[in-house]
Amino acid sequence: MLKPAIPKGTRDFPPEAMLRRKFIFNTIEDIFRLYGYLPLETPAMENLPTLLGKYGEEGDKLLFKVLNSGDFMGNIPQEEIRQGNAGKISQMICEKGLRYDLTVPFARYVVQHREEITFPFKRYQIQPVWRADKPQKGRYREFYQCDVDVIGSNSLLNEVELIQIIDDVFHKLAIRIEIRINNRKVLAGIADSIGERENFTSITTALDKMDKTGREGVVNELNRRGIRPSSINKLGPVFDISGDWHQKLTGMIKLLKGSGEGEQGLKEIEKLVELLEIVKPESEIGWDILLARGLDYYTGTIIEVISPDHPIGSVCGGGRYDDLAGVFGMDNISGVGVSFGAERIFDVMMQLKLFPEKAVTGTKILFVNLGEMEEKYILPLIQVIRKSGIRAEMYPEHAKLKKQMAFADAKGIPYVALAGEKEIASGKVTLRNMKTGEQEEIGFDDLGKTLLKS
Amino acid sequence: MLKPAIPKGTRDFPPEAMLRRKFIFNTIEDIFRLYGYLPLETPAMENLPTLLGKYGEEGDKLLFKVLNSGDFMGNIPQEEIRQGNAGKISQMICEKGLRYDLTVPFARYVVQHREEITFPFKRYQIQPVWRADKPQKGRYREFYQCDVDVIGSNSLLNEVELIQIIDDVFHKLAIRIEIRINNRKVLAGIADSIGERENFTSITTALDKMDKTGREGVVNELNRRGIRPSSINKLGPVFDISGDWHQKLTGMIKLLKGSGEGEQGLKEIEKLVELLEIVKPESEIGWDILLARGLDYYTGTIIEVISPDHPIGSVCGGGRYDDLAGVFGMDNISGVGVSFGAERIFDVMMQLKLFPEKAVTGTKILFVNLGEMEEKYILPLIQVIRKSGIRAEMYPEHAKLKKQMAFADAKGIPYVALAGEKEIASGKVTLRNMKTGEQEEIGFDDLGKTLLKS
Repeated sequence: MLKPAIPKGTRDFPPEAMLRRKFIFNTIEDIFRLYGYLPLETPAMENLPTLLGKYGEEGDKLLFKVLNSGDFMGNIPQEEIRQGNAGKISQMICEKGLRYDLTVPFARYVVQHREEITFPFKRYQIQPVWRADKPQKGRYREFYQCDVDVIGSNSLLNEVELIQIIDDVFHKLAIRIEIRINNRKVLAGIADSIGERENFTSITTALDKMDKTGREGVVNELNRRGIRPSSINKLGPVFDISGDWHQKLTGMIKLLKGSGEGEQGLKEIEKLVELLEIVKPESEIGWDILLARGLDYYTGTIIEVISPDHPIGSVCGGGRYDDLAGVFGMDNISGVGVSFGAERIFDVMMQLKLFPEKAVTGTKILFVNLGEMEEKYILPLIQVIRKSGIRAEMYPEHAKLKKQMAFADAKGIPYVALAGEKEIASGKVTLRNMKTGEQEEIGFDDLGKTLLKS
Repeated sequence: MLKPAIPKGTRDFPPEAMLRRKFIFNTIEDIFRLYGYLPLETPAMENLPTLLGKYGEEGDKLLFKVLNSGDFMGNIPQEEIRQGNAGKISQMICEKGLRYDLTVPFARYVVQHREEITFPFKRYQIQPVWRADKPQKGRYREFYQCDVDVIGSNSLLNEVELIQIIDDVFHKLAIRIEIRINNRKVLAGIADSIGERENFTSITTALDKMDKTGREGVVNELNRRGIRPSSINKLGPVFDISGDWHQKLTGMIKLLKGSGEGEQGLKEIEKLVELLEIVKPESEIGWDILLARGLDYYTGTIIEVISPDHPIGSVCGGGRYDDLAGVFGMDNISGVGVSFGAERIFDVMMQLKLFPEKAVTGTKILFVNLGEMEEKYILPLIQVIRKSGIRAEMYPEHAKLKKQMAFADAKGIPYVALAGEKEIASGKVTLRNMKTGEQEEIGFDDLGKTLLKS
C-alpha cells in the first residue's frame, strides 16, 4: 500500500496555518489595493528560455524543468545521450520550467503586453515560486512571494508610497519594524571617492556584510577581494559618519564631492527624506549608508525592513531598477518595487503571538445535533444566523453530546448552542461560552445580536 | 532578442481579469466559511506514485512530470534508453508531477494526517491544476479548481448544506441556476430492475447521454453496448416517469421494488427532499432520474448545476463517495463534495454582464499631480482618504493634465481630484466625476464623505 507523503521541501498548509497565512496575505493585499495597485497572475510554467540565464549559473541549476509530453526522447541523437550532459539534454526534453521568482515573469508580461498597459503600471502579485534548493530549516522548494511594483515612472513619490505601504502593512500586522534605506548611487559614489569605481561589485559585496561581521570583517573582506589598502583606508570617514539624516547628509556631501553619481544619489536621499517628513510614517526609518542589498539588479533607492523583536533577516525589501525588461527587448523602463517575505512574517507573528484571535477562528458557533426533531428545528434558524454574517455549523450526525463538545473544542469553536425539547418548546437555545464555561438560555432573536457583539 | 511568450494553453491574468476572478473566488470562499468550511492548500508538486493510476491510462499521459534535479540521466541503463519507452523512462527521470486535480491530493492529505484531523472534516481548496491536454477554446493546461468537501460523515445533512452553499453562491453572483440531483443507488436500482446489474457501468454511461442525444440516442447507445433488447424495453417506464418529486418517488418505488440498493437510494432521495423543504433554497431544484455524472467515483447523491441563461455545461457538480482514500490505505471513509467551475462561472458572468461595477473598480480616486507644491499639499491629505478605506492614488509625475486625465480614463478610475493654487489657498479640491463630467469644488473634509456615499 502506498504510504502517503509529499516531495521534500514542500508543505501542506492545514486550516490552522491557512487561516493565518490568509490573514497576512489579505492584510497586505488590502493595503496594496488602497494605494491603487492591482493584482496580476502569471502561469506557473514559463518557457525555459524566459527563465534561463536570469538567475546566474547557480540559478539555472535550481530551476524545476517540466518534461515535454509524449515521445520526449524522440529527437535526441544517441550521441548526445551517450555523452550524458544532463544540462544539455534537459533542455532537449524540457521546453518549460516552473517560475523561480515573480520578477522575471513580470518583466516578460510587461514587454509582451506593452501596447495594452497604461503606464505607470502599478501591480502586485502573490503567487508561489519553486526552487530546487537543498531543503533545510526555513528554506522550501515551494514558497510564496508577494511583490508590489510600479514601473514606468522615475518619481521618488513611488519610493515614498512603497515606504508608506510597508509602514501600513506592518502596523496592521502589529509587527514593530525598522526600515533601512540607502541608494545604490551613493554606494557608487563611495567607490568613486576611494578611486575604486571599477571594483564597485566587490565593494558592495563586502559592505553588505557589515551587519554580520562588523567593520573589521568588511575590511578583511575588502582585502581578500584585492582592494588596495590605501583605498580601504580612505573608507574610514564613511565608516565614521553618524547622526541623524541631516548630519549624515552634510558629511556625505563632503565625502562624495566630485562623484556625479554619488551627488545624484545624495540628492535623491535628500528629496526622499523631505517627502517622508511630510507623510510621517510611524515606523523607525534610518539611512544605512552601507546597505547594499544584492548586486546587479538595483540602480537607485534600496529598502530593507527588519523586525527587531524577532530578528530573522529582512521581512521585506526591494528597490529601484532601471532595466527590468532590457533582456526582453524593452530598454529604459524604470521601476521600483518591494517584496514582502510572507514566510518570515508568518514566523515572526507566530513567535510573538501576534495573530488576532478573530482572524484565526473558523466557525463561531456550533449547533449541537441531538436528533431528528432537533435538527429540523435548527436548520432554518441557523440560516438566519448565517444571514447576519456569523459563521455557523450544525454537527451533521446524531452523536453523543460529549463527542460533539469535544469536536467544538478540537476545532476551537468559541460558542456552542444546544436546543432540546425544552428549548424548542420555548423558542430558545442554550448558549455555552466554551472559554468561560458560562451557559445561558437565550431567545433565538437575541442569539445573533449576542454573537455579533462578542 | 527573446520574443516574450508563455507556454500554449496557459494564461496571464491581467488586472481586469484578476479583479473579476477574485470577486468570484472571494464570494465563494466567504460562503464556504459561513458554513464552517476551512481552507487547505497542498503543494503544486506531488510524488508521481501519488498521481499515477488515479485518472486512468489517459490521465497518466496528461500528467505534467517534473524532471529530477542534478544528474537525472545517471541511473538509466543504456538498454532502456535504446528501447526508448517514453513512459518508462519518464518515471526514471521524474519523481514528481504537477497536481492534476484537488481530489487526489486531498485524499493523500487526509490519510497522511488522519491522526491530527478532527472528523467530520470540512475543507475547501482553491488552487490551480495542470493537465497536458491539447489546448483548445475553453480548455487550458493550467486552470483553477474550487472544491468543497466534508468527509467522515454519512449524514444527508451534508448534502443539504452543500446544496445551500450552491444556492447561496449563485444567488450572490446573481446567476440563475437549476440544480439537478440524483442518487447513484437509484441508478443501480434501475440496472437491477431490468436484470442488468452487471452492466451498470454501460447503462450509466448511456443514460448520461440523455441530455445530448435524447431517449432514442440512449437506446441506440445501450444497443451498441450489448444490452439485451428485452432489458432495454423494460426501461420504458423509467423514461416515462414525470411529475414533481413526490409523483416521481411514488412511481420509482414501484419500479425498483426488490432492489435493495435501489430502495436505499429512494429513501435517501426522500429524506433529502424532506430536508430541502425545510431550508427552502431559492434556486430551482429537480430530481433527474437519469442523471449519472461520470462513472466510478460516486456512490450516493449526485449533484449537477447548470446556468440556463448561458448554457455551457455544468457550472458546479459533485456527489457522495464512499472510498476516497482507499487507494492510500484508509478504507470506508465516506464523504461528499462539490466543485465550482470557476472558469465557466467567469464566462457566464462576462456573457450576462453580471460583474458589479464596484467589484471590478480598482482605484476610486486619482489626485492629479500639478507640481511640487501641489504634491506636498496632497500627500498628507490622500492618507486621510485612504484611512477611511477609499482606494486612492496620486499621479507620480508632474505630467500634463491631459495625460493624467487619460490615465484615469484608461484605468476606469471614476473620480479625479485636482488641487491647484486656488484650491490650496482655500483648503479645497476640485472633484470631477469622470462618468458624468460634473465638477465641484469641495472642502477636503467633505471629500471622504462624498466618495463613501457614491
